[in-house]
Formats: sequence, structure tokens, C-alpha cells
Amino acid sequence: MTILEAARALRAKQVSSTELVSTALERIAALQPKLNAFITVMADSARAAARRADEELARGLDRGPLHGVPVAVKDVFATKGVRTTCGSKVFADHVPDHDAAVVEKLAAAGAVLVGKTNQHELAYGITSNNPHFGAVRNPCDVERIPGGSSGGSGAAVASDMVFMAMGSDTGGSIRIPASFCGTVGLKPTFGRVSRYGVMPLDFSLDHMGPLTRSVRDAAVVLNALAGFDPRDDTSSRQPVEDYVPGEDVSIRGLRIGLPENFYFDRVDPEAAAAVRRAAETAQSLGARIVPVRVPDMAAMNAVGRIIVQAEASAVMEPYLGEREKFGADVRALLDQGRLLAATDYIHAQRLRRLMKQQFAALWKQADCLFTPTTPTAAPRIGKLTIEIDGAVEDVRLATTRLVRAINVLGVPALSMPCGLDRQGLPLSLQIIGPPFREALILRVAAVVEAAVRS
Amino acid sequence: MTILEAARALRAKQVSSTELVSTALERIAALQPKLNAFITVMADSARAAARRADEELARGLDRGPLHGVPVAVKDVFATKGVRTTCGSKVFADHVPDHDAAVVEKLAAAGAVLVGKTNQHELAYGITSNNPHFGAVRNPCDVERIPGGSSGGSGAAVASDMVFMAMGSDTGGSIRIPASFCGTVGLKPTFGRVSRYGVMPLDFSLDHMGPLTRSVRDAAVVLNALAGFDPRDDTSSRQPVEDYVPGEDVSIRGLRIGLPENFYFDRVDPEAAAAVRRAAETAQSLGARIVPVRVPDMAAMNAVGRIIVQAEASAVMEPYLGEREKFGADVRALLDQGRLLAATDYIHAQRLRRLMKQQFAALWKQADCLFTPTTPTAAPRIGKLTIEIDGAVEDVRLATTRLVRAINVLGVPALSMPCGLDRQGLPLSLQIIGPPFREALILRVAAVVEAAVRS
Repeated sequence: MTILEAARALRAKQVSSTELVSTALERIAALQPKLNAFITVMADSARAAARRADEELARGLDRGPLHGVPVAVKDVFATKGVRTTCGSKVFADHVPDHDAAVVEKLAAAGAVLVGKTNQHELAYGITSNNPHFGAVRNPCDVERIPGGSSGGSGAAVASDMVFMAMGSDTGGSIRIPASFCGTVGLKPTFGRVSRYGVMPLDFSLDHMGPLTRSVRDAAVVLNALAGFDPRDDTSSRQPVEDYVPGEDVSIRGLRIGLPENFYFDRVDPEAAAAVRRAAETAQSLGARIVPVRVPDMAAMNAVGRIIVQAEASAVMEPYLGEREKFGADVRALLDQGRLLAATDYIHAQRLRRLMKQQFAALWKQADCLFTPTTPTAAPRIGKLTIEIDGAVEDVRLATTRLVRAINVLGVPALSMPCGLDRQGLPLSLQIIGPPFREALILRVAAVVEAAVRS
Repeated sequence: MTILEAARALRAKQVSSTELVSTALERIAALQPKLNAFITVMADSARAAARRADEELARGLDRGPLHGVPVAVKDVFATKGVRTTCGSKVFADHVPDHDAAVVEKLAAAGAVLVGKTNQHELAYGITSNNPHFGAVRNPCDVERIPGGSSGGSGAAVASDMVFMAMGSDTGGSIRIPASFCGTVGLKPTFGRVSRYGVMPLDFSLDHMGPLTRSVRDAAVVLNALAGFDPRDDTSSRQPVEDYVPGEDVSIRGLRIGLPENFYFDRVDPEAAAAVRRAAETAQSLGARIVPVRVPDMAAMNAVGRIIVQAEASAVMEPYLGEREKFGADVRALLDQGRLLAATDYIHAQRLRRLMKQQFAALWKQADCLFTPTTPTAAPRIGKLTIEIDGAVEDVRLATTRLVRAINVLGVPALSMPCGLDRQGLPLSLQIIGPPFREALILRVAAVVEAAVRS
């Protein structure tokens, strides 16, 4: 069931928020031992919030499609009075005195927060193999990673624990778990959703967004979250739109860019074929496929790695005295970041400005781009390397290859399922668009989704 | 004679631009051996431009008060077809193929460019004791530094070679030579004047502004230069104003903040007394003196030094292979900048944002601040230390102490003469205002100037 289906059922009195939340809590209880998707479950406050939602709806106070719907947030979002660990031992007992802006806005929209999802330690990695709270497991195959860093959010949505779970995305951390778990994941434009109350990994690359079971559900959540927030000094004053595509939307005449130099050489053939099929589907619905060449994505990925390593090490510097509290992979990344020179970081930021200008020229040729989100389906837990079409690669570098550059650019991108590989694992399509064109991306995604499902 | 006086004389046909420019070139020729204020004199093109100005004015095409007036720019401003050295051996033969935005705008206003002024090597220091083009000397006492880095501009204006010379200011480089030479110097708000075509020392601290012989002249120049420029990605879209104070302006009721914790302990008593007298003059004209406490200026100066060292080393990194081409002081600074960690730089930029917020609260208590520009009058050439009220200090640290933080904040500041010390050397007043309140600062300065002169 999607958010929009639940919203209709609630209003038709076929179900109550109390029932939806009870079902969610039961499903979490049943699946948590297997998937480990949550760090904290907020059963009591969720039941109370569900009762309030039912009362409000009964007396005609309707907060919109999220009203009464059980959701979760990654454990980087501050929750007043509820511990917020960031998946880290350092913050294991941290109880914020305020809610993150996203948590406030979800509450204002009537959503019922049932818990905080497990994640990669400090959101600094893509496996969600958390050394302190245990590995999150992929609902499609529990021997595989759900992706990360928002792995618990991906697993919770894919396994029907909640209708939506919020993630954060610094180098792919929403889109990668969406890809590996077979959900929709939306990384909005930099500045579109407030970061107030989120533990930063990286000041200039972090983005907040939802993982959902349908494209329109992601749009519903963006409607609730988008907008200027003076408490976040990177927040944009760009006007918001209604992001939910209508039922009769069309992509006729739209130019879909297929980047020739982006991935085809280093992507699993099944993953590449799935994206080509999605493009052909779009073409059959009136869109035009435009082969394009994109600026050097490998260079953009390198720039992104330098920036995240320097900024993450700056953020975590006060805690680096307690080295034993960090997992081995995160500790190594934090140590590497401290070795970077200020001049390296400054060059990276300069190159970034240049690349943004270069990339902006692409939108003259195409309205959006189609790529895979990840070059493979979900790898097995514990594997450090992966084989792609015969070549062996580091799992982290391969998995972030198609997504990290998008954070450097700050443009919006959505990941959605587009078929299964021969092992039955989800494959994914990434749709990338110009700044603040979330409505366009969501429209294209909704049309492709409807075609794939029918 | 000031720009506004020259403008009146030109329109009364008491003088021609050709005559003004000839006089300027003669005076440069006569004083250059003594003061070394210029790197390049553009006699031929200046004479041609003066003839054009005379023709235009004769046929009624009036470009405003700068039309036909001889001016100079520091050798950091790109001039098409005319070498632009930045005071550096590395760029000794660099001939740009374009004009800086400032050079374009001065030309559009009809000003006649007579040459490029000498400066501290790479604008990276405050003595203007240039190892490649020779030391600039202070017209008030040729054994003393004119200050820097825009030392040639200060000397050229103070010695009546030109009516105005442009400077650049990363940590005081307009205001310090204005203070030591006894001219007006205006550092506008960050983003107010385009930096297009200026060799950067520091992306986030560089500001462009004029040195002039009167406050209203500085305002006339700002009128010609202020405004958005898409070629400078730090340029502001804030609307411009008419910056020239009217003849009948008043400062009645204005709150002048005198920061108690800014300077009185480490400023030459004569310099401090001169500023107190200026404040009392303002008080006698209806302003109110408000004692204020400012945030930690020493910390802001430290932040400014880290940022400039990292950014300057990043800018100059391609040239650091030729170490012997740099003077000893600049080479040492560039080497130091390369040793800074990315995390240091990131922390400095974070602290900077915090300090900007703290400082912004000051404007609830005061409309502007009065401080000295420099803690002493001009030091002797070659001196590395200076004695202030009995304590010995590094010349560079002492001279930048009251000005560097203002670049970190990005707020506008003006330096103007406010009396002479017992040796007959100029003392100075720095007026600091809120972002984009140049008109306010210029109004206060014009009133104080009129009172001091009368």
C-alpha cells in the first residue's frame, strides 16, 4: 500500500491511523530481528500520535495525504527527547532538546513517526554494516547489504514496515539504498529541504529526502518538506511547487539524455539494459532519446571525495581523540581527511564551481538524464570488492560512481526500480534534472513507473 | 584639487582634460624617481583619451564628474594590451587581452587612465617595499613606507599625481596606504564592486575600491563602479544608491559606536586621541557617541590570516616551482599557506560565519563604528618591528590589527585623515558600517571631513 492509497483508505474509513500504526509496529517487531532496520522504535508516542490523527480526521481537521500515516526517519534527524545516534558510538546516548526541521514538518503534516532507522556509522559509507548497532540486511536477500548510508530507511520501506522513511544523501546515501532495496529515493536540489537539526557529515554536500514505495509518494513528502528555513543557512528561497504529478501527465516531446560516456563501459550489462529499456519505454510514450556527452564524472567524483573527507574530518575533529569508538572504515576515512591540505580543498571547491558551469550547459540538449543508480544490484554483506563484467573493483568506489558527482553539482536526482536481474534483485534507474526541477523529474518518473507496472 | 573641483573647472572651461593629463604626466615624471609610485605610465594612450574627453565635452557629451579626469589603477587590474604585473616577477611580462570590470567602468565614466601603480608584491603585504620594482616611498616622508599593498595608489593620490587611484583590499590594503599617506580610502561591501579581471589574492576576502583626496571623490568613484556583474560570481544584486552626500547632509541623532575593546590598549596614544577628537566633533554636530563592545577581533584576524594564507597559496600553487622569483616575505607566506590542513581552513570559514552573525548584532546599538585605521602613523622603510606605547611588535601584525577583521566580515569601511602626529605624519579614522551602507559611511565621513577642514 502506498501513502496515497492509505490516505484514501483513511478518508473512506476503511482503516484508522491507529490500525495502520499498530500494523507498522507489529511488522517492525516481527522483521527487526531479521533486518535490523531500526535503532529506536517509538511505539508509545506513535500510538498516541495515531490516536490524535484519528481524532483530528474524525472532526474534519485534515492535514493532507500524510495525516495518520506511519513513517520513520534515519537516526541523523534530531528528535526532541528521543536519542539520535547518527549510527555512532560517540552519540549513542545523545538526546536532542529539539526536533529537526524535517521532523517538525512531518509532524505538522500529520505523519506518525514510529522510529529512527539504522544506518551506516555517521552516514559515512554505503554498506550500512554498522559495527555498533549491527548490520542492516536487505529485505530482498538478507545476505546482501541494503546499501547506505540510509540502509535502514531502505529496508524499512521495502519490507512494508513504514510507508516512507527519510534519508540523507552526501554521496548517494538515499539513492543507493533505494536502488539496492527496490524503492523510490529522491535527493532534492541542494537547499530545497532544510537541514536544520541534522548532524552534518558535510556542509556543502548533504541533502535530505524521502525513500518511498512509489514516485507520487516521494512527491507527497517533498510537498510537505520543501521550502525556505532561516535556521539553515544553505536553505534556498526559490519558490516551491506542487510536486505531485497529476493522473493525466505526459512526457510527450521531452528530451531524455542518455550519457554515452557515463557508465556503459563499467556497469553490469543487466543494469545497463534495464535503463535502456526504461528509456525505450519513455520513447514509446512520446519522449525523445538524446545521446549526450557529460563532463568528466570521474573528476567530479574525485572532487566530491576530497570535499567530503575534509569536511567530515573537520566536523568530527572534536571526537577524534576517542579513536576506538569509531569503526575501522570510518576511522580510516576520518584519518585520511585530516591529511588533506587546505589548498587541495580550495582547488576542489574551485573545480566544483567550474564543473557546475560545464554541466549546466547540458540542459540545453536534454531536459533530464537517465542513468543506472548503481552499476550492480546489491552486493553481499562483508564483500569489499565486486566483479562488474569481469573486472574487480572496490565496492565503495563502484557503488558511488554514478551518484556522488550529483551531490557535487547539487542538482536533483531520483532513483526508482526498473526491473529485476536474473537473481531476482532490483535494478534501478536514476533520473537527474536541472536545479529545482524536482517536479519535472517526478513527472517523468511517474510516467515510467506507470508504464513499467502495467 | 579634487575630482569634483576638477569637474567644475572642466565644465567652466577653466581647464581642459588635455591640460589636466599633461600636468599629471609631468608630475609623475618629476616625482617618480623620488616616490616610485608607478610600475607603468601610459602617457600616449592617456593623452589620446584626454583629447577624446575634451572633444566629447565640447560637443555636449557629458559622462559625469570623472569625465576627463586623470586616474590610475593598481597593477592588479587587467588592462588590455598593457602589462599587468601584480607587482610580481612571475607576471612581469603578462599582457592581458581584456580590461578588468573596474577599468571598463572608469573608461565608460570618461576617466583618463594614466598608469598602473606600484604595490606590494602580489598584493600580499603592507609595506609596498617591492623587491622587483623597488620600494614605494611615502610622500609625507620618503624614508617611510606608504603602507600597502596599494602603496603606489596612496602615494600617487597624496602627491597630487592623479585625482584617484584604485586599490584592492584583502586585509587592509586600501585603508592602510590611505592612513599612512593621508588620503581617503574606501573598501566597499564584499560583492559591491566587480572583481572581474583582477588577479585574485584571496577569493573570499578581496575587495576593490578607490583612494582619493576627499570623501565625496570616493563617493563619485563608487557611483561609477558599484553594481552587479555576472562575470564575477561573488558580485551582489543588491540595488545601488547615489553615494555622493549632498551639501546639506546632517548626522544629527546618528549613533557612533566607539568600541571599548577594539584598540585603546594597543594603539599609539596620539592615534587614539585623534579618533576620540573626531568622535567629539561628530558629537558636536548632533551625533551620539555609544560605547560598544565588539566580538573578539583578535580571533577574527586569526581567521582572516588562515583564510588568506590558504587561498593565496592555492592561487599561486602553479607558480611555486619557481621559488626564486618571489621575494622572501611573500615566499615565506606562500610556504606557510601550503602547510595548513583542509580542516583548519574549514574551521576558519565556519568561525567566520559565526562571527558575522555575532557582529551583525552590533548594528542594533550603533549605526557605524569609529576606530583608528592603523595603530600608528607610517613606519620607516625596512623596519620589521614597531614600538607602540612602549611595546615592540611585528610591523605587519600591528598594522593589520584594526583592518583585517573587516575583510573577514565583508562589511564596508572607509579610512580618512584626522589630523597629524607631532612629527607631522597623518593620523586616520576608520568608519565601519553595516553591509551595503556605503552611503551612510560616506555621509558621516563627509560631515567629519568638513568640520575638520573648517
